[in-house]
Amino acid sequence: MIKRIDGGVCAAKGFLASGVHCGVRKKRTKKDIAMIYSECRATAAAVYTTNLVKGAPLLVTKKHIADGYAQAVICNSGNANTCNADGVEVAEKMSAMAAEALGIRADDVVVASTGVIGQPLPLAPIAEGIPMLVKALSREGGTDAAEGIMTTDVVKKEIAVEFTLGGKTCRMGGIAKGSGMIHPNMATMLVFMTTDAAISAEMLRKALTTDIKKTFNMISIDGDTSTNDMVTVLANGMAGNAEITEEGEDFDTFMKALNTLNVYLCRAIAGDGEGATKLLECKVTGAKDEACAKTVAKSVICSSLLKAAMFGADANWGRVLCAIGYSGADLDVNTVDVSFRSAKGDILVCQNGAGVPFSEEKAKEILLEKEIEILVSLGNGTGEATAFGCDLTYDYVKINGDYRT
Amino acid sequence: MIKRIDGGVCAAKGFLASGVHCGVRKKRTKKDIAMIYSECRATAAAVYTTNLVKGAPLLVTKKHIADGYAQAVICNSGNANTCNADGVEVAEKMSAMAAEALGIRADDVVVASTGVIGQPLPLAPIAEGIPMLVKALSREGGTDAAEGIMTTDVVKKEIAVEFTLGGKTCRMGGIAKGSGMIHPNMATMLVFMTTDAAISAEMLRKALTTDIKKTFNMISIDGDTSTNDMVTVLANGMAGNAEITEEGEDFDTFMKALNTLNVYLCRAIAGDGEGATKLLECKVTGAKDEACAKTVAKSVICSSLLKAAMFGADANWGRVLCAIGYSGADLDVNTVDVSFRSAKGDILVCQNGAGVPFSEEKAKEILLEKEIEILVSLGNGTGEATAFGCDLTYDYVKINGDYRT
Repeated sequence: MIKRIDGGVCAAKGFLASGVHCGVRKKRTKKDIAMIYSECRATAAAVYTTNLVKGAPLLVTKKHIADGYAQAVICNSGNANTCNADGVEVAEKMSAMAAEALGIRADDVVVASTGVIGQPLPLAPIAEGIPMLVKALSREGGTDAAEGIMTTDVVKKEIAVEFTLGGKTCRMGGIAKGSGMIHPNMATMLVFMTTDAAISAEMLRKALTTDIKKTFNMISIDGDTSTNDMVTVLANGMAGNAEITEEGEDFDTFMKALNTLNVYLCRAIAGDGEGATKLLECKVTGAKDEACAKTVAKSVICSSLLKAAMFGADANWGRVLCAIGYSGADLDVNTVDVSFRSAKGDILVCQNGAGVPFSEEKAKEILLEKEIEILVSLGNGTGEATAFGCDLTYDYVKINGDYRT
Repeated sequence: MIKRIDGGVCAAKGFLASGVHCGVRKKRTKKDIAMIYSECRATAAAVYTTNLVKGAPLLVTKKHIADGYAQAVICNSGNANTCNADGVEVAEKMSAMAAEALGIRADDVVVASTGVIGQPLPLAPIAEGIPMLVKALSREGGTDAAEGIMTTDVVKKEIAVEFTLGGKTCRMGGIAKGSGMIHPNMATMLVFMTTDAAISAEMLRKALTTDIKKTFNMISIDGDTSTNDMVTVLANGMAGNAEITEEGEDFDTFMKALNTLNVYLCRAIAGDGEGATKLLECKVTGAKDEACAKTVAKSVICSSLLKAAMFGADANWGRVLCAIGYSGADLDVNTVDVSFRSAKGDILVCQNGAGVPFSEEKAKEILLEKEIEILVSLGNGTGEATAFGCDLTYDYVKINGDYRT
């Protein structure tokens, strides 16, 4: 039983957080740095972008949590600290300053940056911000931290859940930032999760790497895999449950809680894609296998043409067929069915690879909703997958036509 | 010596063409059907989309030119005749009607359709249009044919060249339509070429399949590989040169002429991408090999983020690095240089994988031009490639938000 609760990244026992404006961004009204702190050392796991160009903070974080432990997260927005000659040095300094201010080990800090690529990240505002962050740390600071990591995000993304392991109440919370340059592969945008469940570093890593394949790696806003994607989870064990050290009932419950968090954050990230007006979910069933289902779902969700059609609430299912056809997946186009579904109902538009008569009026009504499901049945097996995305709008172009200025 | 001449698809001896409005499209001012006719049978070659969903006309054309010969082309716009239960039957009828009206063999007709997917193509307007097309056939009809195959294209695309084979003057011309759903693989949008050079069917096929790998397969407007892409060439031998039946000097000259045509048409298609305001060319040098160069060039030209930045004339080179990094090509990001170039000059923005100081003012001046080159040097070998694309604009979204309505 996974129950939604309030509190975001501070819902789990022993976690404090904060977010402030330190000056990386010029705009004083926008928070640009965030901190998460656990009262004791936590087991930690992370997954990173597969882009060959990797943000300097990722390299530093990878080194820091190689031992499976961490105690704090420091993350700025407004500058990605990527493709800078002094990037690693700056990330190390940022991390060391946070460790010193918190009185923890230097290699127990997860460091992250998000924003523009290729502009040196100045340390002065960070040095000013860290004492402010430490002072502001509180059980109520989760929302501030969620704000501190936002770039072009419009909506804050946070969630928390409660679940039981061996009679002990555990909590798990997460914050995320997404928006543009989102097409994760192996890792994804910035997501920080906390839990008070006790779980070994090894099992935490296993849980995270297993779950992201069905969640964050199935999002695409624009097909661009960022250089700074990272998902991390800290587990401090303060719930007092018997530590999870192997697969079994407790691990399954933990996985369910993690998946609840991640699906929520995925939908939040996709629905708040740059310029997006709609959340799109492509649900593929009847595939030869899961890999095939994933390939098809991602191909559909990535189609610029389909994304633009969804923006226009146009039931242009030919574009769904087209994207299925070029996906590269092994399938028979003559057994493909396509429907659109939303809160207003569902409508079959294509059967056995050919169009069927349908009410354009009804289709329009369905597609004018804010959350649209594109249902694809391949009639070819039992493989299933869901991909998350958003529509392509004027605002995506506007936001990215002058992001730096 | 390849010389540009006028006449498009009718520049070569013995070719006539026409284009009229027959009623597939409602708008009477837009031509919607085109014909090309050779006074004698011609050797023919074609390449087709790799999309598993293939337009019915492609299946019929493939059958018709399996013997290496064709004599006429019939192509309508406004309806792709794809994903329709009766598609093949309709394409066969369309082809048979054209053959009968021209008095040629039924299997010597290349048939093509372009437009919306999944709406039955009515034969009545086609039946009405064919006699009009035959009547209108002329040496001056190339431009009308170029217009007849346009969908959301803004600009007509036609070209012709003259060259010499064994002392005989030969000509080659082509027309194309592109615009949206353009991300060819193995074949591409619609391109029809004609030549009066004598060349065997086998060598014609070889010439075409070799050249498209460097030309049409290197274009991307929006990453969507259409269901109806096709490039065809008819060679009727009326120039009187000794038939090309093997590799050698004549074949090389023929290849040069073909490449001149194709590069021109590629640039025309990319620059007239849906909603485009700019032609983008990504020129990659110093790659480990050609395959690697192609992968990088295509990844850069496909990046929605970079395309939007180019629309805004923003020298956001971090997005170039990002697209290079996720391309999947084998390379060292620490030896990558990036420059932007246009008629206003060029500017180095990234060296050895990190930013270099540059004049934003100068960069803006360069990027405000209509034709932009993105120069990527990988410092890793001698492989080279060029990819063709366009910027991502409000109008792309507008055009595709309500294409069917």
